[in-house]
Amino acid sequence: MQAVASSVEQWGVFETQFSAPGYVSFSLGNRTLTVESFADGPGIFRVRFMPDAIGPWTFEGDGFSGSFEVTSPTSHGPIRVQGTTGFVYADGTPHRSIGTTCYNWVNQPDERVALTLASLRDLSFNKLRMGIFPKNYEYNRDEPPTLPFVNGEINPLHFQRFDRAISALAEIGVEADLILFHPYDFGRWGFDTMSPEADDAYVRYCVARFGAYRNVWWSLANEFDLFKAKTDTDWDRMLRLVDTLDPYRHLRSIHNAERFFDHSHPSVTHASVQTNNLQKVAEWNATYRKPIVIDECGYEGDVEHSWGNLTAEELVRRFWEGVCRGGHVGHSETYWAPDEVMWWGRGGKLKGQSASRIAFMKDILDAAPGPFVPFPEYFAWDRAYACAGVKGQYYLAYFGGYRPRFRSFSLPEGRFKVDVIDTWKMTISRVAESAEGSVRVELPARPYMAVRMEKV
Amino acid sequence: MQAVASSVEQWGVFETQFSAPGYVSFSLGNRTLTVESFADGPGIFRVRFMPDAIGPWTFEGDGFSGSFEVTSPTSHGPIRVQGTTGFVYADGTPHRSIGTTCYNWVNQPDERVALTLASLRDLSFNKLRMGIFPKNYEYNRDEPPTLPFVNGEINPLHFQRFDRAISALAEIGVEADLILFHPYDFGRWGFDTMSPEADDAYVRYCVARFGAYRNVWWSLANEFDLFKAKTDTDWDRMLRLVDTLDPYRHLRSIHNAERFFDHSHPSVTHASVQTNNLQKVAEWNATYRKPIVIDECGYEGDVEHSWGNLTAEELVRRFWEGVCRGGHVGHSETYWAPDEVMWWGRGGKLKGQSASRIAFMKDILDAAPGPFVPFPEYFAWDRAYACAGVKGQYYLAYFGGYRPRFRSFSLPEGRFKVDVIDTWKMTISRVAESAEGSVRVELPARPYMAVRMEKV
Repeated sequence: MQAVASSVEQWGVFETQFSAPGYVSFSLGNRTLTVESFADGPGIFRVRFMPDAIGPWTFEGDGFSGSFEVTSPTSHGPIRVQGTTGFVYADGTPHRSIGTTCYNWVNQPDERVALTLASLRDLSFNKLRMGIFPKNYEYNRDEPPTLPFVNGEINPLHFQRFDRAISALAEIGVEADLILFHPYDFGRWGFDTMSPEADDAYVRYCVARFGAYRNVWWSLANEFDLFKAKTDTDWDRMLRLVDTLDPYRHLRSIHNAERFFDHSHPSVTHASVQTNNLQKVAEWNATYRKPIVIDECGYEGDVEHSWGNLTAEELVRRFWEGVCRGGHVGHSETYWAPDEVMWWGRGGKLKGQSASRIAFMKDILDAAPGPFVPFPEYFAWDRAYACAGVKGQYYLAYFGGYRPRFRSFSLPEGRFKVDVIDTWKMTISRVAESAEGSVRVELPARPYMAVRMEKV
Repeated sequence: MQAVASSVEQWGVFETQFSAPGYVSFSLGNRTLTVESFADGPGIFRVRFMPDAIGPWTFEGDGFSGSFEVTSPTSHGPIRVQGTTGFVYADGTPHRSIGTTCYNWVNQPDERVALTLASLRDLSFNKLRMGIFPKNYEYNRDEPPTLPFVNGEINPLHFQRFDRAISALAEIGVEADLILFHPYDFGRWGFDTMSPEADDAYVRYCVARFGAYRNVWWSLANEFDLFKAKTDTDWDRMLRLVDTLDPYRHLRSIHNAERFFDHSHPSVTHASVQTNNLQKVAEWNATYRKPIVIDECGYEGDVEHSWGNLTAEELVRRFWEGVCRGGHVGHSETYWAPDEVMWWGRGGKLKGQSASRIAFMKDILDAAPGPFVPFPEYFAWDRAYACAGVKGQYYLAYFGGYRPRFRSFSLPEGRFKVDVIDTWKMTISRVAESAEGSVRVELPARPYMAVRMEKV
C-alpha cells in the first residue's frame, strides 16, 4: 500500500492505493469509520477517506496499518441538516442552499467543462445538481467523452472525470448534488435498466469513490417515478445501502417528476422536490419535518416545454416564494440556441437575468439569522403572501406577483428595523429604524416586493 | 286585481296587482306555472310572471282569471346550462359568461348607480355579481339609501331599487347574479344572523319579486363558509326552497371563501367558485359535471389584500387560463382611491387595463363554436398549458405566463387554420390556412400567448 499524504486537513481527502480490493478502518479516539476500496484501473485499488476531526488518526487494513495527522481545515466542511428546515456546515457556518442544475456538464468535452466551472466561479450558486450517467434526451444527444461502463465493467476514466469535477466544485464552494440514476436513457446504453446487483455495485462504487469529498450530496435519482424498470422497493434498498455504506452520512434524497417520494423515509435527509407550486413548501415541511429543497421549479428559458420557459421574473419569484415559505430553491436555464448547448444540460455560460437577482437574494439570506422557519400563520387571511424567518427576531415577508400599495404588519415584542426590498430591481429601502407594535409600510404597488423586519 | 298589460313578449315580465296576498297560476297548453304574490307597500300585492313561450296564456287565482297574449321576444331569454360545461340562452344563442362584480352598487346614491350602469353599457361583461343586502366591510361603510327591512318588515323601497337595477341590466344584456346572503354584516344590521323563518320568508320574497326577470341568477351566498350562524343544512334548505319556488328554474349556485360547497347538490346548476388556482377547473368540472364559474379569482387593483391587488396582466391571464380549462371567469377591480369608491364595492367607473383585454377575449369566444370542454390531455406532459374547445373542430391552447419560442401541435383529422393570439397586446396572426397532421407554430417567446386551431 501507498499513502499519498502523511497529513491532510480536516474534511480533506486522505487517499491510499492498493493492489487488491479491501476495507480500511480509520480511527481517532473511540471512533472508527470504515471505507471500502474502489478499482481505478488494472490492479489499482484506492481507498479514500475524509477525516472529520483534527488529530492523529490511525488506519488499519488487511495486514497493514498506519497513521497520519489531520490538521486545521481551510473549508467549512460537509453540510448537515439544521433543525427541520435548514442546513449548516460542519464547522457551524450557516448554509443557505442556492442551487443550480447542469445535468450533463461533466459528460462534455473538457473545454466546455472548464467553461462551466469558470462560469460557476463567478456565480453565487452553492450547489450543483449533476448526473453521473450521460443523458439521451432532447438537446442532450451528443456522445459523451467517456461512458461509466465498458463491456459491463466500471470505466475508471469516466469516474476520474467526476473526481476532477467534484474537487473543482469543492474548491469554489459548490456542493455536488450527485444524481446516481436518471431515466433518460431510452435504450441507448441501458443504464436505467441494469439489474439490482449491478445497481448496487455501482452505488457501492460511487460511495467508495466520491464519499470522501466533503461537498457531495447523494441524489438517488432524478424523476424516480419515471423509471419503468424500478420500483419503490429498489429505491428503498439503494437509499439504505448508501446510508449504510457512507460513514460521513452525506445528505441524501431522491427527486420526483409527478409523484413525491415518501420523504419520511429514514434514510432521506431532506425532500428533493419538483413542483411549480411553491405555496405548498410550508405544508410539506410540516409533513416531513425535513428541509424542503425545490430542486426543480422550472427554468428560465424559452424552449417549448413548460418546465423550461419561465421568464427571469417568474423564476426569481419562485425563489423568493420558496424561501419565504421556509424552503430552498434551485435554478437552471434553458434558452434555446442553434448549438443546443443550454446551461441546464451541457453547461457553458448563462445568458439570463435571474442569476444576478438570485445572488442579490443570497446576500440578504447570508446576512440573516437562520435557519428560516415558515410562518404561514403570519398572513392568515392572505395566504398568497409568504413569510419566513426566525421567531421573534427576523421576518422576511414576500408578496410575489401581488402588488399591495401598503400593508400593515404586526410586529412581535421589541423594536424592529423595517426595510422594503424590490427583489427584481435589487433595491433595499429602510422605512423604519425602530418600529414597534403595528407598522404600516407603504409599498410601490408593483410586483416582486418583500418586507424585511429585523429586531434591533 | 289589475293587469298591467294585456300582451307581453316572451321572457318579458307580466305583472298584476292585488290588495291581498295569494298565488296565481299561468297556463299555456298542458303547462301551468304558479307564482306567489309579494308585498310592495301598504295593501299592495303584486304578482310577476315571465312567460317562456309565445301564445295565448291564461291565468287563474283565488276568485279571478284572465288571459293575455305572449308575443315574439326581443331578447334571447334566460340562460340555461348547456352540456356539462357551458351556457346557452333559451332561444339557443350560445352564452359565454364573462362576469364582473360590483357587490354593493345598488346600495349607493342614485347618481352612482346611474354611473355604474353607464359604465356597464360600454363594457363587454354580460354578468354582474351583486348583493341585495348592504355591506359593512372595508371600503364599504357608507349608509345605504334604503335598508331591506324596517322594523323587521320588508321595505319595498329597497327592493324597488333592485327592480330598476335588474331591469336596467336586462336591457343592456347583463345577467344579474343576485347574492341573497353575505357574511359582511358584523352586527351592524344582523342580516347574516336572522332566524331560519326570516331567512326563508326573505328568500320567498326575492323569488316572487325578482324571479320574473329573465336575467336573474340565484347566488345563495357569498362566501357561505364564513357564516357563523348558518350551517350546510341551512344552505341545503334554502337551495331547495329556491329550486321549488322558482318556476323558471333560473341558474342557482353558492359561492365559497375557502371550503367549496358540494356542488353536486341537486339544486345547484353550476359551481360558483372562489380560487386562485385556475389550473384545477377541468378537474372540478370532471368532479361535478356542471359548469365551473370562477366568480372570484382575485381583482385587478392595488389594495393591501391579495384578493384585490392583481396586475391587469395577471387577471387577464386568469381569464384565459380558466376559459382554456373549460370554465368561466369573473372580473372586478379594486384600485384604492381617496373616496374609497372601487368598482368591486360601490361601482362607478373602471380605471384598469384588464377590461379591454377581456372584451377582446369575448369577441374570440363569441366567434367560436361552443360550449367549450377542457382537453387537459392535450398537453399531457405540459399540464401547465391549457387547452379547451370543441372536439375535432376547434381548439384554443393557452400558455399563460410561460413563453415557448415554438410549439408543435398534433391536429385532429382534417384541415385547420391556425392563429397565434397575443392575449395582452390583442393581436391575431394567421400562421397556417390549411394545416394538417402535426404543425409547428413559431411563437414570440413572451408570456400570454394563445394558439387557435379551427377546422376549415
